[in-house]
This record gives sequence, structure tokens and C-alpha cells, in this order.
Amino acid sequence: MVWILIAPIAALAAVFFSVYLYFYVNSRSTGTPRMLEISEAIKEGARAFLRREYIALAIFVVIMAVILTIAIGIFLGKGIEIGPAYIFGSVCSALAGFLGMEVAIRANVRTAYAARKGLNKAFPIAFRGGAVMGLSVVGLALLGISVIYFSTGKPELVLGFSFGASAMALFAKAGGGIYTKTADVGADLVGKVEMSIPEDDPRNPAVIADNVGDNVGDVAGMGADLFDSYVASIVAVMILGEGLSLVTPRENLVSLPLIFAGLGVIASLIGVAIVRVGKKGNPGKALNWGTYFTCVVLIGLTFIVTYVLEFPLAIWGALTVGLVAGIIIGITTDYFTSIDRMPAKRTAESSQTGAAINIISGFSYGLISMFPPLLGIGIGSAVAFFICELGIGPGFGVYGVGMSAVGMLSIVGMIVAGDAYGPIVDNAKGIAEQAGMEEEVIDIADRLDAAGNTAKAITKGFAIGAAGLTVISLLAAYQAIVQREAGIIIFDLMNPFVFTGALIGIAMPALFSAMVMLGVGKNAFRMIKEIRRQFREIPGLKEGKEGVKPDYARCVDIAAKGALRELLPPSTIIIVATLAVGFVGQFIAESIGPPYEFGGIQALGGYLGGSIFSGLIFALLMANSGGLWDNAKKYIEAGELGGTGSDAHKAAVVGDTVGDPFKDTAGPSLNTMITVMSLVASEFAPLIVAFALLY
Amino acid sequence: MVWILIAPIAALAAVFFSVYLYFYVNSRSTGTPRMLEISEAIKEGARAFLRREYIALAIFVVIMAVILTIAIGIFLGKGIEIGPAYIFGSVCSALAGFLGMEVAIRANVRTAYAARKGLNKAFPIAFRGGAVMGLSVVGLALLGISVIYFSTGKPELVLGFSFGASAMALFAKAGGGIYTKTADVGADLVGKVEMSIPEDDPRNPAVIADNVGDNVGDVAGMGADLFDSYVASIVAVMILGEGLSLVTPRENLVSLPLIFAGLGVIASLIGVAIVRVGKKGNPGKALNWGTYFTCVVLIGLTFIVTYVLEFPLAIWGALTVGLVAGIIIGITTDYFTSIDRMPAKRTAESSQTGAAINIISGFSYGLISMFPPLLGIGIGSAVAFFICELGIGPGFGVYGVGMSAVGMLSIVGMIVAGDAYGPIVDNAKGIAEQAGMEEEVIDIADRLDAAGNTAKAITKGFAIGAAGLTVISLLAAYQAIVQREAGIIIFDLMNPFVFTGALIGIAMPALFSAMVMLGVGKNAFRMIKEIRRQFREIPGLKEGKEGVKPDYARCVDIAAKGALRELLPPSTIIIVATLAVGFVGQFIAESIGPPYEFGGIQALGGYLGGSIFSGLIFALLMANSGGLWDNAKKYIEAGELGGTGSDAHKAAVVGDTVGDPFKDTAGPSLNTMITVMSLVASEFAPLIVAFALLY
Repeated sequence: MVWILIAPIAALAAVFFSVYLYFYVNSRSTGTPRMLEISEAIKEGARAFLRREYIALAIFVVIMAVILTIAIGIFLGKGIEIGPAYIFGSVCSALAGFLGMEVAIRANVRTAYAARKGLNKAFPIAFRGGAVMGLSVVGLALLGISVIYFSTGKPELVLGFSFGASAMALFAKAGGGIYTKTADVGADLVGKVEMSIPEDDPRNPAVIADNVGDNVGDVAGMGADLFDSYVASIVAVMILGEGLSLVTPRENLVSLPLIFAGLGVIASLIGVAIVRVGKKGNPGKALNWGTYFTCVVLIGLTFIVTYVLEFPLAIWGALTVGLVAGIIIGITTDYFTSIDRMPAKRTAESSQTGAAINIISGFSYGLISMFPPLLGIGIGSAVAFFICELGIGPGFGVYGVGMSAVGMLSIVGMIVAGDAYGPIVDNAKGIAEQAGMEEEVIDIADRLDAAGNTAKAITKGFAIGAAGLTVISLLAAYQAIVQREAGIIIFDLMNPFVFTGALIGIAMPALFSAMVMLGVGKNAFRMIKEIRRQFREIPGLKEGKEGVKPDYARCVDIAAKGALRELLPPSTIIIVATLAVGFVGQFIAESIGPPYEFGGIQALGGYLGGSIFSGLIFALLMANSGGLWDNAKKYIEAGELGGTGSDAHKAAVVGDTVGDPFKDTAGPSLNTMITVMSLVASEFAPLIVAFALLY
Repeated sequence: MVWILIAPIAALAAVFFSVYLYFYVNSRSTGTPRMLEISEAIKEGARAFLRREYIALAIFVVIMAVILTIAIGIFLGKGIEIGPAYIFGSVCSALAGFLGMEVAIRANVRTAYAARKGLNKAFPIAFRGGAVMGLSVVGLALLGISVIYFSTGKPELVLGFSFGASAMALFAKAGGGIYTKTADVGADLVGKVEMSIPEDDPRNPAVIADNVGDNVGDVAGMGADLFDSYVASIVAVMILGEGLSLVTPRENLVSLPLIFAGLGVIASLIGVAIVRVGKKGNPGKALNWGTYFTCVVLIGLTFIVTYVLEFPLAIWGALTVGLVAGIIIGITTDYFTSIDRMPAKRTAESSQTGAAINIISGFSYGLISMFPPLLGIGIGSAVAFFICELGIGPGFGVYGVGMSAVGMLSIVGMIVAGDAYGPIVDNAKGIAEQAGMEEEVIDIADRLDAAGNTAKAITKGFAIGAAGLTVISLLAAYQAIVQREAGIIIFDLMNPFVFTGALIGIAMPALFSAMVMLGVGKNAFRMIKEIRRQFREIPGLKEGKEGVKPDYARCVDIAAKGALRELLPPSTIIIVATLAVGFVGQFIAESIGPPYEFGGIQALGGYLGGSIFSGLIFALLMANSGGLWDNAKKYIEAGELGGTGSDAHKAAVVGDTVGDPFKDTAGPSLNTMITVMSLVASEFAPLIVAFALLY
């Protein structure tokens, strides 16, 4: 059937368009020699991190591929293609991250230079730089899925591809998160506090590592994270569709998510193409308008295709529910973190009575802020479920939930474009300041930067909502896989295996985020020692003597090496714990016997459910309270309540520093962590079942 | 059958013994006139709070009783005794709290005075003061249950009694928590920070409110909390036992928890009687030894009774599992908060790099600390389940889980005795210091105080574990009630009603604790205004002129009134949300029809499950990180890392201040909150079912 070709064609178009945009960005001027110098140092540092990351990843991926090939491919006889599919997934994700980063470190300096000629000249460079990332993420992901599915016809191999992508996401998102905060904390504590030199001062050995961090965490990490969610949402629906069939199917339900994803890429391409801003325009509005427009185009395109292919309109309805829920979640989340809303203002006011009250206030609003998105995900998934369950037939409900996640994530091309725009303009602003450009240029860079924050509020809501719906459909996919192998298996909350699994599951996101945050502390300590050493041992560095330069590369290296080292224990724990719950649970279940003979499988279901609940809680809490503390500080810095330097400001800085690892390290890693756990469970589910049936 | 008389007889014995201990404490000397003066002021303040609390409670209880009588008693025809049973529950709990508080505010000053004659003279006064609370809690609770059950034979009316007790717990625990932190923050911010007068200075108008707070939150609140859990655990097992029958039952399974609870009271009486300490003895060890001894006695007594009455030994096994799990949870929890363990030391060390790092470190260890208790509750409940499910027969598993909670909670008499000892000696120390007693007396008071903290670590673990197991069995009781009314109803995690209910449920503890913490902030603000007013308007107060006294009563009044006012919105929300999930869910379910006709009931099951998960997470996180910050500060105050006044100390004080509302207000209220929600669900379940069957 010809329609499914939409997926690879749209994917190829996205890749080609992103290559075109790459050359567009690269053809702009890099500005003054000083600007080029700063930009080269950032480029070098970013590449150094990526190099380390890719080496570590390669080792990890090869080991996992061997395990998968032996355990799933040979032992279970599911075919040895699983190993290559896994590797292919991580390579595609790494490639998207590499391209995005390469363009980001080019776009930043070029945006800064173009800002001299006005907002409308600078904006396209930054936005198209972001679009390269967005389009290569969706392009490479969808192309990879198409290649595997067309050549083998097996959704399970797409699952392997997805699992490979999740490994990359773990390294890029959690590792990048540790990296960026290590550099940030180290640079600030020695530079600003001990040496009393300004932020971003070139004498500080960690300054480049700090600048690199923004690119590593926000560009490459976020890209890998959404690559991961995007692929996972598609594969979950493919697996759920495998067991279903329509009475008059014009097209297989397995390929429908691919068609919809292809339409999403087309909608994103249109969205990216139409985003532009005038000389006096508002770039924030332009970005949001682009997102809304993309949504409308997608809703239209999917409606036409659903109608033409004679699929039930209920499936289209579920997809639309996902998109609408995403926007509502985005808008409500925005309320809790925006600088001009009550929570941020109240938190800023509470800073007047000290740092502790600032922390309690921000934490409390963070707790409250969970309510709207949780309600949104809950109601959204239930509506999507019932539209399909009642509109099509029994069993289609979970397919509808999966499709609502696909709906949200199919416009990822546009979302990532807007998201990657943020760190590019942030970096551009930094370069403009460091290169001593004119006041009005910095002002334009500021306005571009502010737009990034506005856009981020909406896209962050999308990302959280999409991740929530994706993990729900991954849980459903896990259930579908085990049921296919072992018959009906229910995750009854009152079953002791499910309940105990859930209690262990809820502890995992807490454990993972704590280990990651403590890892930042340990790594920052190493960094601090190195910065102090350089100031002590390099003569003339502190005094800023002409020609004396710190050893930037060494700091980048320490941050990178340490980040990967601190990432290892928590990553190992979540993978091992997931397998342990399944296999140990199954071992106990078998000694108990019927009706508990599938206890391990059920425990793993409860464990995934528990980790979804707890993961959503902590992801929302950490992202929102972190953003809130940041904006409460900015509110004071804008001149309110005594302004910069006041006691309230000092208290707000404490809150902001607490919020940094919350929102940049631990919080954003949780999505990835839960996806990894769900994919481990789904990937190894047939093995656990085989183990169960062995007895 | 005569054995069940163990319950009322043991309960009466406990009440009589606590009256005897009350007179013992009261007969000791109150010391110098200055001591008496301080103690009288605390007494007056505590009574003022209780008066307000009881008036507010009375209004609340009467309204709820009318609703229950109409909705459950008349409309459903379950009998109008439900109203009086509800009122009786709250009155019994209030009476136990009143007695405990009355003796605590007498025991503190008498302990301080007796400390002049040595440790072995002071210890019994403090411990027996605590024991009055412990024994009146179990005595009045068990007596109340016995009266209702013997006179009506209906476990549902015991559920009403339990529901009444939970209303009292909500007011005493959450309201008391807001009260105590309001007074603390207000007194510190104006007194120490603005006026630069020492802590506990009699010129501070809020000093009495602050001293009262310890009694209100830690004595009366904790007593009401454990009264609530104790009754809830017993009634849950009674309800679960109602539907079960043994092949050769010598005794009804409904009355067995009463018999075991009676044995628990006897074990506690023995435990309380044997606790003593020599002149050079270690009071902390004496308290812990008393707890262990009580456990052993209970295990022995229950074994004998199980054997003699020919009950399956599996039930006794489940009870023992509960006790053992409680002790293991206590010991592991202790590790994460103790002053001489790695987490507290590391957190103290991290204070050297500032307040933010101290917060992140303490928060991270708090996150990790969840793991052992969650694993303990999970494994404990699963073992208790399977011992009974496999050892007796299908359906007995949840009965076993309930029995393990009863096992933990049946020694509540001893636990509360040790727990209430803490604030008594804490107050004694404060009085000794304020009254200017000799160094060696203060030293003895210090040692008594330290012992309180040691004992608290174990008992806190018990309380958390017991609450976890109790809410699990309450969820099972809810299921048993709806199944009795409407047939088999499963809480399948993949059912959209259950899942959406769970997503809403996990948001509730977060919402509740945030509102309570923000309530502290608002109320403290009112308090601060009043303290400033008094310093401004009362001539000679600041200078400490002879005969000039602040208006203590007014501060007590503001704290009390505000606490109850701030408690109203979160309490209303949790009750209304619980009913809304059930009824609105059921309304939607009925418009969908089979197989979702009981969707509302299932949504409520998921909601309770979700709130249990999230409630446990936040209760553990807040209690443990709060305790950890407190001890990290104390570690520095003991002279490490620069000692009091150093930068590290200032940073640690911020952590401690953040931890205060965590561990004293929000964290401990969560147990109560979840119990209230579970009881609301169980109490109104028949109404939701009736609503379901109406269609």
C-alpha cells in the first residue's frame, strides 16, 4: 500500500531540508576575530564532550547489543537482527544529536553578529539553527523506523531500535545534565565566590566548560530525549496495533502511526517554513504561532488521510485529544513558572524573610503545579481510550491512548526547533557580552533570549504531557507483549506482586534523581580542585596577564569524564533493578504456583506503573519549582523588592541554585529513565515469560 | 465466647493504670515559683489551643455526623447509630489527647525539678508522663471499639467510630502542625532576627506559643494520629474478616483483631512497668529495650492465644512479620537521620559550600532514604499476604496484611509512651534553662532529651511502617465493602478509570502538604505583625522593665485561630475530591455502561492506591530529610566544621528551617490525610454503589 511511503518520503524531506538549513546557517558571517575565538573554544569543548560520550556510549551499546543478540536473538530464537537494530537506533539518535550540536555552535556566534543588523536578521539564523536539530531528530528517527520495518516487517525490531535510542538519551540527557551543572557550579564557586572575578570571565578555566554545558544539556540532551520519546510512542502503537484488526481494514493498524508521523513531519516542515518575524516583531509570539499552526495543519492532514483511507474517525479523535491536552498542559504549566504570575511573585516576596522561606514557598508551588498536568494526562488518556474503545471496539482503547501520544509527539520537529532556539540565543547573548558588542546589539540578543523562554513554557508542557502518554502506552505495550506470549495477564492493584512491584517502582525515580544530584556534587568537587590548581600553578592567570590562558580543555575533560562516571551507577541500578523485579519476582511466583504463576510479570507491570506515577511527580515538581525559583530571582533582578544585591536577592539566589540541578539535571532525566525502564521491561518480557514457561 | 473480653478488660486496665500514673506524676514537686510560673503559662496556652480546637472540631463533627446519619443511616437504611458512633470516635480521641496533654504540661516542670536529684529520679516522671498518653490512647480506643461492637455487633459502626477519630487526628495533627511552626517561625524571626533577643526570652510575646507548640504538635497531635491508625487498622481487619470463615472456627475472625489488640495492651502495660534506669544508666537504651521487650511479650502472648484457640498459626505469622518489618524499617530509617552517620555528616560537610548545596544534599539523601522502608512495607505486606493466602486459603491474604498492621500497632501503648517522653523532656530542658538552674541539672536534662531522640528513631519507623500497612488494609477493606454490595470489582491498573483515578490520587498528598506549608507562611505573617505590634505598643517591653509582660495569650490565640483557618481549605479539598472522584466517576461510568458500569468505584480504588503511593513518598521524604537537616545542623553545633556561628552553620540553619515544616507540619499530616481519604471512601462506598445500582 502506497500511503505508508509518506513516512520515509517525509523523513527524507526533513533530512534534506535540515541539511539545506545547515548550509544556510553556515554561510552567515562569524563576525569579529574575538567572537570567532570564543565560538571556536565552545565548539572545541562541545566536541570534546561528544567524543567522550560517544566512546562511552559505543562500549555500552556494543555490550548491550551482544546481550540482546544472545538472550533474545539466539536463546529465544527471535532472530539476531535485534543486535544491529539496537545499534542502529543509538547511531541514528547520536547522529541527530551531533548535527544539532554542530549547527548550534555555529548558529550562536552568527546570530550574535547578525543582531547588529536587527532582530529580523538575527532571528532566522537562530531559529533555523534550532530547526536543523528538530528536523534531523524527526527525519532520522522516522527514516530509521521505516528502514527497519520495511526490511523486516517486525515491530519487535523497531522496539530494539527504540531501545538503542533510549541508551543514547540516557547518556545525553542525564550525562549532559551532570556535565552542565558540574561546570556551572565549579565555575561559579571558584570564580565568583573565591576569586571574585565576574561570571563568564575568560580567566576562569571552567568558563568554556560552562558555555559548552548549555549546548550539551539543552541541545544535544533534549534532542536525544525527544528522539527517544518520539520513537517509543510510535513503536508502542505499532505493537498495540499488531494484535488488533479492523473489520474492513484498508490499511494495517501497525503502519498507521508511521503514516501519522509522516504527516507530522510534513506539518512541522510547513511550520518551520512559515515562522518569521518583522523588524519590530515579537519573536516569542512567532514561535508560539508556529507551534499552533503546525498543530492545526496536522489535525487537518490527519483528518483527510483518516477519511480517505476509511479508518475510523475515532483514531483521529484520539490524536486530536493528545494535541489539545498538550497545549492545555503547556498553558497551565506556564502559569506556575512565569515571571509575571502569582507563584513567582509570591516566592520572590517570601525571599524577603530569608532563603529558607523562599525554598519552602517555591517547593510548595511546585507541589501544587503537579495537579493540572496530572489531571490533564489522566483525563486526556481516558478520553482517548474511550473514544476508541467505544467508537471502534474492545481492545482499541489502549491503541487510542498510544495514538494520542503519537499526536503530541508527531510535531516534535517543530517543538525541538523552538526548544533548540533557546540555548542558541542564550549562547549568542553570552558571546555578544564577552566580545564587548554595542548596547543595542545586546538588547536585541536579550529580546531573542526572552522569546526563547516564552516558547519553552509551551513546549515544556508538550514534552511532559507527551512523555506521560508515551510511558502509559509503553506499559500497555508491555502488557500486550506478555499477553501474546502467556495469555491474559491483569495488573490488579490488589495482587501482592503488583502492589509490591509498585512500591519498589515508586522508589526508583527518587533513587535515580538523588544519585544524579549527588553525582553533580561529587563531580563539581573534582572540578573545583582543578580550577584552584590552575589559578595556583599558572603564573599570571589570576592577574589577567596578556597571552596567559587557562587550560580550558582540561576542565572540559574533567567535567565530561566525571559526568559519565557518575552516570554509571544510577543507570546500572535502574536496568538491573528492572530485570531483578521481573526475574526474582518470577522465581518466587513459580515456587508459589497458580494463580500466581505469572507473579514476576505482574510485579514488573506494577513496578512500571509505580515508576510512572513517581516519575511524573518528581519530573513535574523538579521542573516547575526549578523554573519558579529561577524566575523569582529574575523578578527581583528586574528591580523589584530591592533588586540585585538586596537580602531578598541573596535568598532568591539560594533558591535558584537549589533549582538548577532540579530542573537541569534530575528532573529532565526522569522521562528518559522511565522510558528506558519500560523498554527494558518490554524487550526482556519474552525472556521472563520463557523463564516462566520453563517450569 | 469469653476470650474476646480480653479487649475491654485490658483497655480498662490501661485506662486505670494511666489514671494512676497521672496521679503519680501530679504528686511530684513543681519546684521554684519561677518554674511554676513558666509551666502555668504553657499550661494556659495549651489549654487555649485545645479549647479552640475542640470548638472547631465540635462544629465539624456535628455537621459530618448529620450528613452521615442522613446519607448512610436514613437514606441507605443502615441505621442512625452511625452518627453517634462517629461522634463517639472523635470524643474518645479528643479525650485521650486531652489527658495526654494535661499530664505532659505537668510532667515537664516536675521532670526539670527532679533532675536536681539525679537522672534516675527525673526519668520516671517524664516516662510515666508519656505513658499516660500511650495508655489512654490504646485504652480509650479499644474501649470505644469494644463498646460499639459489643452493643451492636456491626463492624460498619466501628468504621464510623474510626472515621470520627480520623477527624480529630486531622485537626490535631495538621492543625497542630501549622500551629507549632507558626509560633516557631514568628518567635524566631521577630525575636532573634529583628530584635536580637535570645531564643526562649520571656520578653518575646510568642515564646509561650512556641513552648505550647511542642505539646500541641508532638504530644496531642501524635497521640491523635496513632489513635486514628490504631483504630483504623483494627476496623480494617474486622471488615476483612466479616466475609471470611474458617472450616472449624472456634472464634469469629471479626473479633480476633480485638483479642490481639487486647494482648498488645497487656504487653504494653508490662513494657511500661519494666522500663527503668539506674543513676548512671542510659535512658535511650532503656526506652528501646522496653520496646523490644514489649514486642517479644506480644509475640509470645499471641502465639499462646492462637494455639489455644486453634486459629491457624499463619495469622500469628502475619502479625509477627508486621512487628519484625517495623523494627527493620525503624533501624534503616535511623541510619539516614542519625547525627553520627554518613548522610548527616556529608550534609553537614556540604554546608561548607553554602545553603543551596546543603539543601540539595539533604533532599537527595531524603530521596534515597525512601528505598528501605518502601521495600520493607512491600516485602512485609507480600509475605504477610502469602503466609495467610497459602497457609489458610484464598481470600485470607489481605486479612493477613491487615493483621500485620494490627501487629505493629498493637504495641502503640508503648510506642506512644516513648514518643510523648520526647517533648516532655524537651520542655523540661527549656524550663530548666529559662529558670536558670544549675549546669549539672541542665546536663541531666540534656541527657534525657538526647534519649528521646534515640527512641524516636525506632518509633518513627514503626509509625511509618504501620501507617503504610494500615492504609493498604484500608484499601482492601474498601474493596471488600464495594464487593459485598456490588459483586467482584477489580482495580486493574490498565482500566482507564483506575489509571486516571490514580493520577489524580497521586496529586492529592502533594496538594495537601503544599497548602499546609503555605498556610504556615500565611499564619506566621499574622503572628509577626502581632509580635511587632506588642513590642511597639507595650512600653518597657523591649527593655525588659520589671513587671512589664507581653500579652502571651493573644499570640497563642492568633496561632490557634490561624492554624484552624488554614487547615480548613486543604481538609475540605481532600474530602470533596475523594467524593467527587467516586460520584463523578460513577456518573460518567454509567453513561458508558458495561463493562465499565462500576467505573467510579474503580476510579476511587485507583485514587486511594495513588494517594497511598504518593503519600508514602512525601511522608518519608519530608520526615527523613527534615530530620537529616536538623541533625546536620546539630553536628556542626557540636563543634565540627567550624561550629556555631561559622558559615557552614549558617548554611545548615537554612536547611534546618526548610526541614521544620517538612518534618513537623506537612510530612506527619500525610498519614492522617490518607487515612481520612480511605475512611471517607469506605464510609461512602455503599452510597456510591447505591448510586450505581440506581440506574
